[in-house]
Amino acid sequence: MTTFVSFLSDFGNEDEFVGVVHGVIAKMSPETRVIDVNHSVHPGSVRSGALSLMRAIQYLPEGVALGVVDPGVGTDRLPIAVETDWGYFVGPDNGLLSPAVALVGGARAAHTLANPDFVIPSAGATFDGRDRFGPAAAVLASGEARIEDLGDAIDPASLKPMILPLPEVTDSTVSGHTWWIDRFGNVQTNIGPEDLAEIGIGFGDTMTIKVGLNERVVQLVDTYGRVEEGALMAVVDSQGLVALSVRQGRASDELSIGLERPVTFARP
Amino acid sequence: MTTFVSFLSDFGNEDEFVGVVHGVIAKMSPETRVIDVNHSVHPGSVRSGALSLMRAIQYLPEGVALGVVDPGVGTDRLPIAVETDWGYFVGPDNGLLSPAVALVGGARAAHTLANPDFVIPSAGATFDGRDRFGPAAAVLASGEARIEDLGDAIDPASLKPMILPLPEVTDSTVSGHTWWIDRFGNVQTNIGPEDLAEIGIGFGDTMTIKVGLNERVVQLVDTYGRVEEGALMAVVDSQGLVALSVRQGRASDELSIGLERPVTFARP
Amino acid sequence: MTTFVSFLSDFGNEDEFVGVVHGVIAKMSPETRVIDVNHSVHPGSVRSGALSLMRAIQYLPEGVALGVVDPGVGTDRLPIAVETDWGYFVGPDNGLLSPAVALVGGARAAHTLANPDFVIPSAGATFDGRDRFGPAAAVLASGEARIEDLGDAIDPASLKPMILPLPEVTDSTVSGHTWWIDRFGNVQTNIGPEDLAEIGIGFGDTMTIKVGLNERVVQLVDTYGRVEEGALMAVVDSQGLVALSVRQGRASDELSIGLERPVTFARP
Repeated sequence: MTTFVSFLSDFGNEDEFVGVVHGVIAKMSPETRVIDVNHSVHPGSVRSGALSLMRAIQYLPEGVALGVVDPGVGTDRLPIAVETDWGYFVGPDNGLLSPAVALVGGARAAHTLANPDFVIPSAGATFDGRDRFGPAAAVLASGEARIEDLGDAIDPASLKPMILPLPEVTDSTVSGHTWWIDRFGNVQTNIGPEDLAEIGIGFGDTMTIKVGLNERVVQLVDTYGRVEEGALMAVVDSQGLVALSVRQGRASDELSIGLERPVTFARP
Repeated sequence: MTTFVSFLSDFGNEDEFVGVVHGVIAKMSPETRVIDVNHSVHPGSVRSGALSLMRAIQYLPEGVALGVVDPGVGTDRLPIAVETDWGYFVGPDNGLLSPAVALVGGARAAHTLANPDFVIPSAGATFDGRDRFGPAAAVLASGEARIEDLGDAIDPASLKPMILPLPEVTDSTVSGHTWWIDRFGNVQTNIGPEDLAEIGIGFGDTMTIKVGLNERVVQLVDTYGRVEEGALMAVVDSQGLVALSVRQGRASDELSIGLERPVTFARP
Repeated sequence: MTTFVSFLSDFGNEDEFVGVVHGVIAKMSPETRVIDVNHSVHPGSVRSGALSLMRAIQYLPEGVALGVVDPGVGTDRLPIAVETDWGYFVGPDNGLLSPAVALVGGARAAHTLANPDFVIPSAGATFDGRDRFGPAAAVLASGEARIEDLGDAIDPASLKPMILPLPEVTDSTVSGHTWWIDRFGNVQTNIGPEDLAEIGIGFGDTMTIKVGLNERVVQLVDTYGRVEEGALMAVVDSQGLVALSVRQGRASDELSIGLERPVTFARP
């Protein structure tokens, strides 16, 4: 039976990091297929990686999720495997895996990756993606090892969480942050349509948005085609979050906005 | 038996768009393998995507071609599946699929993707690659659905064509356009050697080329090794089209030329 | 049984070059899986490609390694297949494959790829990755052909080597070169810890490094976590070579250093 490892990292596509991890998994578990979820996470940005994995997880085949965004490599952060209803998550205990684990129902068990039987010896400093996380993902996928074979059990409640800021709602405003800008210049916020409903804004209504020094009036719509070409809109995007978009254009350019910037929506 | 979905898009490699579509297909059809044809199509450039898919199609395993370059997402352009001698094509009806479909012998049948049984519900605006095109490709690949199960039949003759400009030939000149610049700076035109033959130019002959304000004399050759290092040449490239190349150099830089620019070849 | 082709090239991810080679292999050998080792080798840089393949080879599943960095395409450099204890290597005879071949024990046999039965006819200039190297890799992986079916035997001793400069050691200094800068700004040199041992430097010792106009004092450590955040260190990296790194930072930026630049380590 085909098994899957879904692999997310900040390794980029500039060299053979990703390919080597594919090789390690293929050697240890030839029937396992690897899905490259995203390797363009900004280097070391644990939060961006965690959000990306969270957005993807419900669309990935049950099995093993391997996440490596690990600015603490070589320090005392623990390498872990987590068991959930969806399957296994493997990576560093730095919050990267936590939002996706929570989304699939939480951790049933967690173990360190201390067993040297499942670690590839390195000629120098450990490349944990290759030497430790990749092998653990491979043996969990193949069934060669159970999670308890990988290392000591740790309390799932002790796993490092990822604190994701919630929007703040007043009588007439909802304030939040931008937290994803995609290739098309769509700017996703951490605000949901249910937050806007609290201030009486629904589909078809207009509202004021404040982004840095920009203040604009936009309509909240359910699909890109509702507005004219070139118009800025607030759309409930394919993740169910409020995003700023320009039809046939780039909202991120029009608003000169980057990641993790404050955004406020207000009744007009 | 292994089946294949060959996947082309403008999703880029910056985030998890491509990986999520892989995940959707793996969940619905675990034995299907996905070949990433090209995800670096310029965002929204239907013509570039259509040319890329056309160049690739004869080298791809028969099965399903999934193409998503879709600036009209959320408007009334139809999502479609097309049946051909080669296999199925799935994507938006905006011309993206048309040149490749024509190259493999044309459409035998076409259906919309209206059947909600094969659409993944979205929390907000539809991400058609993930929610509609990916699932359709998966069920056609696995055999879980026939094309007529996906939605209403539409007249193949009504599919939107992609108008590709033809070169113009006079007594002594051939005029066309640049339409691909590859990573090595090779500049492919829409002109074939048979067009140059009409003005009496064959392999080994020299001719004048005009590109913007540049006017240069080049030789028409059949392989890169025919000229000195650093020399500009016109070569019949691996697609059978006339390209401008510099041996061990970059013709696009030497001629300061971009995509979709006019080019004229003339007898010297 | 699943077989593997591990594929490295300088084709980049900007267009369908890589995808087309995947397609060719899938058509000829559907059960073979392709591992993308690295396609971001600097265009035409045979040495960079050879180093990348050498770093990866021990982690790749035995089978076929397909390497295409081929600035001499269209000249008289030979297309070859090489048999080793690890498996087969396919690519141009320009030194690209040589370090990896040497690492797995050397060539037992070598053949040209002259047999037209295993070459796809091209409409113009040959795209050897697609038309010649890809098909050879596919038939070796599937077992459809033996290496001697592909073309004439050539003397393995006649294969073009890749000359890799060795560090120079004096009484108090070790001089070498930078030869890889990864995505995280780590700067790998061609110097090993055994070279530094010759001048009396071991883990925990400090030394002076000279890089261009920069002169700095650093500690030699075995893992990134040994120094403060922001500190420059010399670390024996996951390849067993001495690299310059900044914890939570980018050594390449701090030292303003590029590839193939001289580096000298000296006793303080």
